[in-house]
Order: sequence, then C-alpha cells, then structure tokens
Amino acid sequence: MIKTFINQVPVKKVIGNQLIDAADLLAVEEPLEIQLSYATANKRSTKSISVTMRTPGNDEELAAGFLFTEGIINNNNQVESVEVLPLRENIVVVTLNENVIPTLQKAERNFYTTSSCGVCGKSSIDAIRTVSVYNNEQDDICVKATVFYGLQDQLIKQQLIFQSTGGLHAAALFNMEGNLIRVREDVGRHNALDKLVGTALLNNELPLNKSILLLSGRASFELLQKAIMAGIKIVAAVGAPSSLAVQLAKEGGITLIGFLRNERFNIYCGEQRVHL
Amino acid sequence: MIKTFINQVPVKKVIGNQLIDAADLLAVEEPLEIQLSYATANKRSTKSISVTMRTPGNDEELAAGFLFTEGIINNNNQVESVEVLPLRENIVVVTLNENVIPTLQKAERNFYTTSSCGVCGKSSIDAIRTVSVYNNEQDDICVKATVFYGLQDQLIKQQLIFQSTGGLHAAALFNMEGNLIRVREDVGRHNALDKLVGTALLNNELPLNKSILLLSGRASFELLQKAIMAGIKIVAAVGAPSSLAVQLAKEGGITLIGFLRNERFNIYCGEQRVHL
Repeated sequence: MIKTFINQVPVKKVIGNQLIDAADLLAVEEPLEIQLSYATANKRSTKSISVTMRTPGNDEELAAGFLFTEGIINNNNQVESVEVLPLRENIVVVTLNENVIPTLQKAERNFYTTSSCGVCGKSSIDAIRTVSVYNNEQDDICVKATVFYGLQDQLIKQQLIFQSTGGLHAAALFNMEGNLIRVREDVGRHNALDKLVGTALLNNELPLNKSILLLSGRASFELLQKAIMAGIKIVAAVGAPSSLAVQLAKEGGITLIGFLRNERFNIYCGEQRVHL
Repeated sequence: MIKTFINQVPVKKVIGNQLIDAADLLAVEEPLEIQLSYATANKRSTKSISVTMRTPGNDEELAAGFLFTEGIINNNNQVESVEVLPLRENIVVVTLNENVIPTLQKAERNFYTTSSCGVCGKSSIDAIRTVSVYNNEQDDICVKATVFYGLQDQLIKQQLIFQSTGGLHAAALFNMEGNLIRVREDVGRHNALDKLVGTALLNNELPLNKSILLLSGRASFELLQKAIMAGIKIVAAVGAPSSLAVQLAKEGGITLIGFLRNERFNIYCGEQRVHL
C-alpha cells in the first residue's frame, strides 16, 4: 500500500505587497483508528481503543507502540498480528494471541487516578510508576557531552519530511556513541514516539536502555511517560521540558536534557550519566 | 487561589566543556479534570468528561471552552456556574442550568464517525460540519495584508511566560484592525485555544466572526475544528498547517494563513478576505 506523507497544494504567497501563485507541501494528517482483537475461551472481542490524528506511514508500529506505552499490552509475545484493514487504510487491528487479556482499565488514561489528593502531578507520577514493566535498576551508563552536540545535525539530515513541510515532529534513537539508529516523524509528537517504540517492540529490541532518545521539540509529561515505559534512560529534547516532565524524569531515574543546541544543553536530572 | 505558571528548578548548564550550576524557569504542566454536573426531573448527574494536561490558570475558561468546542454545550445560557473545587484546584465543575441536557455522545471525539468509507478525513470533516452552531454564511470581511504583518510582534510582547520558559503555546485574538484583544498560553496548544474560546463564551462574545485568531505554532485539524465551533473566520498560524487543517478550513469557509513571518505569509484558502 502506498502511503502519502506529503500533499502538494496551491497557495497564494504574500510577500510585502506582492501576491504570487505557488505550490506548497503539507504534512498529511489523517485519523487512524486502533482496534484491539483478543480471545478468551470461546469468545473473541474486537474493541476500538483510540482514534489518533497521525501522518500515515508506520501505522502498524504506531498501533503496537501506542498499546505498549499506554500499558495495554506488555510485550511482543502477546501479539499475534498487526494488520491494516484492506481497503480501509486508516484502521489498524492488533490481534493478541489466544488467552492474552489486555489491561484495558488503563486505557482510559493510565496516568490518571482519582486518589484522595485529587488530580495532581503526584498521583499522576504514582500511577505511571506502577505500570512500567521495566525496573528502575542501577546502571553505569556514561555518555560524553560531545556525543549530544552531534545529535541534532544527524536528525536534521534524516528528517526529510519536516524539511519540506515544516510541519512534523520527530523522535529518534541513537546509540551511546551518538550513531543514529532510527527516526520516526509525525504531525503528533506522541505518535512519532509511539512509532519509534512500536518498531522496537515488534523487532524485540525492548527495553531501550542502551539508547538515547532525541525529541525534536519540547518534552512533556506524556513523552516522558512513554519513554519510561520503553525503558529509555536518556532523553534529550531540542526544546523546553515542562515541570511535570522533569518531576517524572527524576522519579523514573531518567537523564533529562533540554534546549540541546550546537555545543550547549541543560541537564535537568540524572547528570551522573553525562561525562564532560 | 494563587496559580503557579512557572517553576524555578536547579539545572546544570553544559556549554562547550564547562558545567555551570544555574536556575531555569519551567512552564508548569499539571492535570486538570473537567467534570460536568446537570439535572433532569429529580435526578442530578456529575460526570468526569476529560483529564487534560494543562498549565494552571484560566481553568474555568478552559473547562467552559473545552465543553463548547467539543459540542457538549452550545451556549453560555446553558451554564449555571463554573467552579474550581475548594482544596482540589485541579478539578473544575461546570454546572448546567436545570433541564439542560449536554450532548454527551459527541464527547467521545466529535470528529470521529464510523461511516461506510472507514475513518478518513472526509468523514471527519462531515462530522464536524454537523455540530457547529454557527452557519457558514456569506460575509464581506476584508483585512489588509499589512495588518497580518504586525500580529506576531504584538503576540511576542504579550507572551510573557513563553519568553521565560520557551515551553508554552499561545492563542491570541485580534480585531480586524490588528489590535490585540486577548492572549491565552498553555503547554497544550488545544488548551490555549480552549481558554481563549471559553473566555469569549463566558463573556457572551461568541461568535468570534469579527476577530482574527493567531496561533503561535502549527495549525492542526483539531485547532481548526475548535476555531470553526467558535465562529472564527480568519486563522493565522506562525507555523505550518497540516493537510486536514487546510481541507477543513476550505469546507468551513475559513481564511487560513500559515508561515506568518515579518512581511510574508501563505494563504491556503479564503484569500478573498485579504486585501493587498
């Protein structure tokens, strides 16, 4: 199936007091419905889990990654197949192996609990801590500061769609020497990361505790949550982190870097893994 | 109640081969639960409608705006009160007047229908068209191109939190002469717009068909959907629009401008309202 990432549209360019007919390239945004099919005893259920606005491409990885980072499935062995429905390319069905029961009560929003303190960052962080399948064990990871300096250049060279449309977020994995492993792009930053994690899940590469995650924009709570679910230890963002992203990174033992630009960056926590 | 928009945190700044202890300002991100309370005959129901990750501040406007742009309520006359729960400042309760029934089936995601063509942009656009309370009637709005050139400078001067944290999106309303009416900021771009629309709703200023909406970032389908719900006719974005944002703008009779920078911008549709 041919996926369309970019649409060419006619546009009127206004420059000073001139109006020029031109063509512009847009990042494609289309809804994707993620369905989950599972069987117990003699009963098979198929449920619609989510509709997300995404850029087409890597839809199977996006669906698998979403189910994993939301805590609905725990590993690749639970998955029998991931298929885009024929003639309905905006629906992906993830079918689980016989007798695998998905953790659906968490699908509501796994970070959200009605704890006695009301809704707050504390309860959000408590909730996410209970669902990650990877322990926050000690490690001796150490990455040279100069490795981080080179990440963004490599991302920009790879981020082909963004260059032409200016409309896509990227999530990229690098090894500890700063070599690019994989990039995924999407109009939604959470989708870009789900595509990246989903690819690793389907390739049996999880946990990603030997990789650096680079985010092309800001670092939100949701992105840190997904990174922790995938066992990632080092997250570097080109943009700013939010307050709750920093809190969650601290509690999750993550090294969080923000404002990564040329030869400078900020370390918000986990500085022991960065070697000058 | 004092709301905190900015957190100061210690940070390690890496510059070249130096490590410097410093302080950094972060945009606060916290969950907000939106509850809806309504009564029919002798029964009162209170339902949790949504949990969104937002920057505290204008929470009442955010809740009212969200319910309106999602099509759950239709006008300010339906609203009896909007209150932040005492001692639980991350929960807002919107109470409707007696016998007002909210349109809750649309809360699932009002743009999503399981039409015969599957999930696609076409069905999304059809779905949104049916729920907007404002007609797409003819108008003779005409705005000088030079008015658009000045919008971003005014926004930057007002966007105080963004300047210090680099972490917030803004949505701003201007009149047709390019004078700033109001700005709202948030870690989530949809929240910034819901705060802006919610303020207008609670002030009985809807529809916003005499205003220009400026978005500090990209223009997605979701943002165009919310703009159309509020009756906005002109949307200008500093960043790129997505393909579905352009389609929806065309169908909704919106003038959509992207890549607004200094004395240049792109018009994706509705160019009849822009006068050179």
